[in-house]
Amino acid sequence: MENKYLLHGKLTAKPGQQKELADILIQASQLVSTAKGCTLYAVSHDQEDENAVYVTEIWDSKDDHDNSLKVEGVRELIMKAMPILDGAPTKGQELEILGGVGI
Amino acid sequence: MENKYLLHGKLTAKPGQQKELADILIQASQLVSTAKGCTLYAVSHDQEDENAVYVTEIWDSKDDHDNSLKVEGVRELIMKAMPILDGAPTKGQELEILGGVGI
Repeated sequence: MENKYLLHGKLTAKPGQQKELADILIQASQLVSTAKGCTLYAVSHDQEDENAVYVTEIWDSKDDHDNSLKVEGVRELIMKAMPILDGAPTKGQELEILGGVGI
Repeated sequence: MENKYLLHGKLTAKPGQQKELADILIQASQLVSTAKGCTLYAVSHDQEDENAVYVTEIWDSKDDHDNSLKVEGVRELIMKAMPILDGAPTKGQELEILGGVGI
């Protein structure tokens, strides 16, 4: 079996729009929650950075992740998030899970 | 309710010892899997970095994480990992979960 895929990325909101960005990402998590291969989609923040929002996803495969971007409504949420981002999103860390628990 | 705690950290093994380090961390995940508040303990690697091992943990609280270090056998595993690390471990990212799925 293919190892699971972990994506850990940071998005930076324009000043004052962190909560709005986090809310959009939480809506996205709900849309993809029933997509094939979705194990985790966590939206978090760093208490020492008032503009950053982190997304940590675990999928059965990278393909499952990529397909989730086509789930109905996800594209609309991405379009809604783009104008409140402070610059282009940086590429997330793409990792391959070797083992552990709760996966 | 307190928001959950996410810890994402990178450990670097001495050359050739990545698999051994990952195996030790997977053993640690098994020891803490039944500890209070453990939601996720994923051990992963970056296909482009042959020495790094990543640990991504989700706990009900930071206290639950801190207490997991006292689980029987964990200290022994940490002692076993220390000599194969390439330098001191860097501090992981400590994040607070705002929402999402699979948590």
